[in-house]
Amino acid sequence: MSNRTLYLSNIPVEEALQRFQAALRPHIQAKAEQIEVIHALDRVTGEAVYARCNSPMYNSAAMDGIAVISTRTRGAGESTPLTLGTGDYTAVDTGDPIRPPYDAVIMAEDLQEAADNGVIIRAAAAPWQHVRPVGEDIVQGEMILPSGHTIRPMDIGVLLSGGITELSVRTRPKVAIIPTGTEMVEPGADMPDGGIIESNSRMIEALVRHGGGEPTRFAPVPDEYERIKSTLQECARQFNMVLIIAGTSAGREDYTVHALRDLGEVAVHGVAMKPGKPTILAVVDGKPVIGVPGYPVSAYLAYETFAMPVLRSLSGFAAEDTPLVQATLARKLVSSLKHREYVRVKVGKVGERLIASPLARGAGAAMSLVRADGFCVIDRNSEGMNAGSTVDVLLSRDSHSLEHTVVSIGSHDLILDLLADLMPPGASLSSTHVGSMGGLLALKNGEAHIAPFHLLDEETGTYNIPILKNLFAGRKMALIKGVGRVQGIMVRPGNPLGIKGIADLTRCNYINRQRGAGTRLLLDYKLKKRGIAPSEITGYEREAATHMAVAAAVRDGGADAGLGIRAAAMAMGLDVIPVGEEDYDFAIPAEFLELAHVQAFVETLKSAAFQEKLEKLGGYTTEQCGEVMLIDC
Amino acid sequence: MSNRTLYLSNIPVEEALQRFQAALRPHIQAKAEQIEVIHALDRVTGEAVYARCNSPMYNSAAMDGIAVISTRTRGAGESTPLTLGTGDYTAVDTGDPIRPPYDAVIMAEDLQEAADNGVIIRAAAAPWQHVRPVGEDIVQGEMILPSGHTIRPMDIGVLLSGGITELSVRTRPKVAIIPTGTEMVEPGADMPDGGIIESNSRMIEALVRHGGGEPTRFAPVPDEYERIKSTLQECARQFNMVLIIAGTSAGREDYTVHALRDLGEVAVHGVAMKPGKPTILAVVDGKPVIGVPGYPVSAYLAYETFAMPVLRSLSGFAAEDTPLVQATLARKLVSSLKHREYVRVKVGKVGERLIASPLARGAGAAMSLVRADGFCVIDRNSEGMNAGSTVDVLLSRDSHSLEHTVVSIGSHDLILDLLADLMPPGASLSSTHVGSMGGLLALKNGEAHIAPFHLLDEETGTYNIPILKNLFAGRKMALIKGVGRVQGIMVRPGNPLGIKGIADLTRCNYINRQRGAGTRLLLDYKLKKRGIAPSEITGYEREAATHMAVAAAVRDGGADAGLGIRAAAMAMGLDVIPVGEEDYDFAIPAEFLELAHVQAFVETLKSAAFQEKLEKLGGYTTEQCGEVMLIDC
Repeated sequence: MSNRTLYLSNIPVEEALQRFQAALRPHIQAKAEQIEVIHALDRVTGEAVYARCNSPMYNSAAMDGIAVISTRTRGAGESTPLTLGTGDYTAVDTGDPIRPPYDAVIMAEDLQEAADNGVIIRAAAAPWQHVRPVGEDIVQGEMILPSGHTIRPMDIGVLLSGGITELSVRTRPKVAIIPTGTEMVEPGADMPDGGIIESNSRMIEALVRHGGGEPTRFAPVPDEYERIKSTLQECARQFNMVLIIAGTSAGREDYTVHALRDLGEVAVHGVAMKPGKPTILAVVDGKPVIGVPGYPVSAYLAYETFAMPVLRSLSGFAAEDTPLVQATLARKLVSSLKHREYVRVKVGKVGERLIASPLARGAGAAMSLVRADGFCVIDRNSEGMNAGSTVDVLLSRDSHSLEHTVVSIGSHDLILDLLADLMPPGASLSSTHVGSMGGLLALKNGEAHIAPFHLLDEETGTYNIPILKNLFAGRKMALIKGVGRVQGIMVRPGNPLGIKGIADLTRCNYINRQRGAGTRLLLDYKLKKRGIAPSEITGYEREAATHMAVAAAVRDGGADAGLGIRAAAMAMGLDVIPVGEEDYDFAIPAEFLELAHVQAFVETLKSAAFQEKLEKLGGYTTEQCGEVMLIDC
Repeated sequence: MSNRTLYLSNIPVEEALQRFQAALRPHIQAKAEQIEVIHALDRVTGEAVYARCNSPMYNSAAMDGIAVISTRTRGAGESTPLTLGTGDYTAVDTGDPIRPPYDAVIMAEDLQEAADNGVIIRAAAAPWQHVRPVGEDIVQGEMILPSGHTIRPMDIGVLLSGGITELSVRTRPKVAIIPTGTEMVEPGADMPDGGIIESNSRMIEALVRHGGGEPTRFAPVPDEYERIKSTLQECARQFNMVLIIAGTSAGREDYTVHALRDLGEVAVHGVAMKPGKPTILAVVDGKPVIGVPGYPVSAYLAYETFAMPVLRSLSGFAAEDTPLVQATLARKLVSSLKHREYVRVKVGKVGERLIASPLARGAGAAMSLVRADGFCVIDRNSEGMNAGSTVDVLLSRDSHSLEHTVVSIGSHDLILDLLADLMPPGASLSSTHVGSMGGLLALKNGEAHIAPFHLLDEETGTYNIPILKNLFAGRKMALIKGVGRVQGIMVRPGNPLGIKGIADLTRCNYINRQRGAGTRLLLDYKLKKRGIAPSEITGYEREAATHMAVAAAVRDGGADAGLGIRAAAMAMGLDVIPVGEEDYDFAIPAEFLELAHVQAFVETLKSAAFQEKLEKLGGYTTEQCGEVMLIDC
């Protein structure tokens, strides 16, 4: 089995789902099971539930007081008080039964004590006054819940009051999750050379759980045709749905599609979506089997696009409408006409607008799934969307929390994560890293509340304020002071190439930062001063997006040197040759200083907890941290 | 301990919560515990989590193909193909490590086979082309999640990829739930005379679970001072929070507040809210103890208002903002200046407006909690709100599903529940029962899509159409035909009082329907024809809201007779003396017929499944069911 299917098809998403559902239709049927009401929270009723008894079960007192016979209280009034003897009434508390001959209740507050345990009343009781009639709340035989209803806390209370202790709920579909790949290693196990931690199956296990399924996760199956085939065969027999991860494309060791063709019907292999193209939709033994691609973002999208709707049908639900919000796109997005693209975005509310800022687009960038607030979908047959256009965003976080989030776009520093962690409950900080210049432009366009930046003014030799005045001429701005930090050349421990300064970068493998990053501009400034052309530096064109990414490349030997902050070098155990100290501050339009979440951000900068964490990290000076300077630009 | 505290205080809601939180502040601290990442779904991080390794762990192939040394591919081009020998490359699959001397990958698609296992290339490889650099996704030492973050499926995947297998999460607060009351009986147990099914504790158990707490529910404790006190003392020692249900007022057997005064500090006894006034907020052993009133709606509101925010503090969260929607109030609401009132409402989207229709207001009406879509809050110091005014509604259901809901306001019939149950997935039917006349007026005011009604035109002796033409003169309306149904006098089996017709109602205990109900208008019409005055009928003023409620009262002996539909009598095992047959139809403005959920409703009326259920129920004729008649009024 080493014959290769070189090409995947490129079927549009809707058509792929329709083909799959058509192939499944004859087989899908929601099942039900009987469970106890007290364990039914969040389960879905399999059939309508009718009350077995009345509530209240009998006419009962609605107040504390006495039960009376209404006809015997006639004539009582303010000026004509009436005394009831012990035979005329009985004391009752709220909820006590009112049985014949009694037909009314008089409240304790309206009673006056008389001799021989009698009571004096000063008003006649109307028949049925302060009596809760039988069945007032729930009438025996009435429908309490329709079928297909997700059971809430109050439903449990009413079911029990209506005499129901067990009910029929829809069975949770049993879903097998099979990771594959010879190189896959269980999390926490020893890592052999070339091994990869198997984590996708655990993400999908959690998605299935959220979707109301009952997941069973298998240990990784190596890339061997027979083992993959027998596992699929066995699972299709025992489970309601099978998700097999990785090996779904058309490579040398991608056996899944061949195994599925042997076992059943492959409805689709290859979908016009990105990420997620190498998805397989098949039916084996009447069960849906989905081949989920191995890149984490592809796996997530293949699950949400195909597995989730099928899981809902298996549970007897209609397809879920995905809640969309409208946002303004912060940067231009180019896309191919050939597929639908899902772009991860950060979403923030700045002024009255929701702003969507695109994140990394690679299928392997799982961390961007964590950082993202949602997906922006670019349709097939669209070449992309311009900055400033309105886009639909599929939110992956609570839309409400967006109101309390400080949106930061700009230069990267390790302190942003620390600050995000230390924000007080109810406020949060969301950071996108596009470099100093990119951040200031975003701020100018109203796409962020704050822009962290560190830009040297070549004329004055000072940081930040001159650039800010120049860029925001005529606007009321402020600078929230951040930290002073040392920039230097990061090298492997012991500095094996003996690099002493900028001039030595011409004789090593360099790794640069992306365009617009303050650290790159610093390099350019230093090179210019020394008359060195960028082309003299091997690796000048190789870009990394953060200080930590540069440090990781140096440590691993992929590069010999890279410019970055000392804190990042220290965190990675690298040596650093200082080339200057700079101010890393936050630009902010003055009007945003009023916002409660921005104030929380300033307080966090000033907090003792933050200072403590900075000291631990090292490489920073913090004298002015959190000071606010108003600047008339 | 039988001394009575006759009066509760009446402290405003915000003040009560502030007092309680002030008393708790010195004691509250969120705790954390270490758990496995694979079990961490929906848990909340106790501290920030940093990556322990890079992902990818090494430079790796981003494509299937061959790894090459980029410098050795220089010069290759379309017209200058280059042959690489087996020593110049190595075959790689996506994800395989790229180790020195290799520094680039050429895709399989760009290769051509040559002799001796060599390959021909037609383009030079740029350094690092198709290579995923180490740490591209996750850099060792970077923050993956901040503290206080609720863990989602994608977070689990990234944590594992970042080398994390265990993490610190906030401990779930342990909450004791203690129902009290000597009359309380466990659900499903034999019911002694005067017993009440204990269900509140199970509703609250579910609320605690939804709120992220770990509930422990106790069996009901009888109303005995010493047992209540010792249970409270023990629970305050062992749990993080205690909720004790019922016995919280100032009645003869309400011991809770006395026990709490003996054990600790009672911060509040009596809150200016309705329902929910007899709430106790206390601190024992540094633990919050809440005395939750025994009426189900009061219990729910006391939980949401006081227990939920405290549970959130214990879990280390900020108080949750409650999501509100704006809706138009369908009926006037009168309220007292003395307290904040929570009125249950049905909410529906009719045209562009959300409409809130008030439901039953009693504290005991648990069923209305199930039927409600949310709460409308009337502030203290407000006398109420007029029909048509805009009100804030706290939704208790998914706001999205409101878009697909047919809003029905009008006359009650058992078929409404059947129809609600049979609506196809993705559409639903929401019914409010206000009688025929009330429904038509609601329809006229744009508060409903359809109005079920049965109104006899006294002049023509025909049902529904004349009234509709009269009421909606000039509008394009339609009638969706419903069912024919027999109205009759419901009596206990065997007809012990020998009632033969309307005239005999003067010699029995009658139970009537509410004003505006078609069934009441039918009685009035029949009485008038026979020259009988309403005052001649005992119980004419006693009102029930549904046919089933009338039937329950008759069966229980609370009344001897009541007018209602034969189906209700049959469901309750009563005899019925027919007085007429009538048409129960649905009025609808013609423009609503287009709506997909209204079409689903019509289809449901016509469905075989519905016909089948009607036959089982009995008492209906269904020849025209689901037919649509357009009516120019």
